[in-house]
Amino acid sequence: MKALQDKIQQEGKVVSSTILKVDSFMNHQIDVQFMAKIGQEFARIFENEGITKVITIEASGIAPAMAAASALGVPMVFAKKTKATTLDTEVYTREVKSFTRGTVYDIKVAKSAISADDRILIIDDFLAYGHAALGLANIVQESGAYLAGVGIVIEKGFQSGGALLRKNDIRVESLAIIDRMEDGKVFFQD
Amino acid sequence: MKALQDKIQQEGKVVSSTILKVDSFMNHQIDVQFMAKIGQEFARIFENEGITKVITIEASGIAPAMAAASALGVPMVFAKKTKATTLDTEVYTREVKSFTRGTVYDIKVAKSAISADDRILIIDDFLAYGHAALGLANIVQESGAYLAGVGIVIEKGFQSGGALLRKNDIRVESLAIIDRMEDGKVFFQD
Repeated sequence: MKALQDKIQQEGKVVSSTILKVDSFMNHQIDVQFMAKIGQEFARIFENEGITKVITIEASGIAPAMAAASALGVPMVFAKKTKATTLDTEVYTREVKSFTRGTVYDIKVAKSAISADDRILIIDDFLAYGHAALGLANIVQESGAYLAGVGIVIEKGFQSGGALLRKNDIRVESLAIIDRMEDGKVFFQD
Repeated sequence: MKALQDKIQQEGKVVSSTILKVDSFMNHQIDVQFMAKIGQEFARIFENEGITKVITIEASGIAPAMAAASALGVPMVFAKKTKATTLDTEVYTREVKSFTRGTVYDIKVAKSAISADDRILIIDDFLAYGHAALGLANIVQESGAYLAGVGIVIEKGFQSGGALLRKNDIRVESLAIIDRMEDGKVFFQD
């Protein structure tokens, strides 16, 4: 998505060869109009899949997932990362390791939030090592619903998440794939 | 907002006299079309305030804040609850006590995300004891920006948050105010 590559070039901050900050439009401040375009692009890519629900993980996934759900005209569900007292006790859960933060956490989705008839699109802001997205994909598979694929705003192509998901026969569609970051610059895969 | 009261009556689950679950449309699954109407209602209420930015707190505030920002045509910022390695080191921060969860956490907003020229609308999903909203209001005040008010989807009128904010001369607009919850039923203030 050319407009996204341009936005990353203009506003992204390369913190290191592995860390990109996009706090001006996605991970802290949300450019709501631009996010709507991202949602429309996901809707276009998956338009033939008959998607009935979009699923993501709190918190940074919520904005792009909501935009995609809005463009598709379907509900969105965000998996919770912590034990929430007000969440259903009947939950699907997976343990996820975050390499970025060096932590392990559980993601949880209420069983009532996914039906076996659902056709699910998973959306997330970043794809790095892919453990969160794979955990969510496993939850969808356990529910019996159909997993149409995973839509990612920014994939770190130099990390293993894309390969991990594709190895598990999951369709992955990333709007921008970063090849490498050097000298404060971002280089994209075509 | 009559449609919200109806939605709460139809889909909300009264867990106890103080806990209401709205996981089917706001706090786990998001009814995106309904959330857009909530956003439009906030935009209508604050239409004369010249709002330039909507601010909320991750994670449950993001959906209503994004809907409001979309209706107002302005960016949205979500305060972070944990020390994020990819967030600006130049941050405004406040310590917030959560009575619901019995925890204390910091909320952080990058200084670059608020300008003294901004006219801010704070949005949150629930108002209970109000410490999170007050912390965010204090951050806005510290930044020098104008605080137009706080928009709440569901206020627990039987808890002290509304009084706390109003005592601090903050305009609070709640789309539904719960008077009490009894025998599994929700009773609203007019």
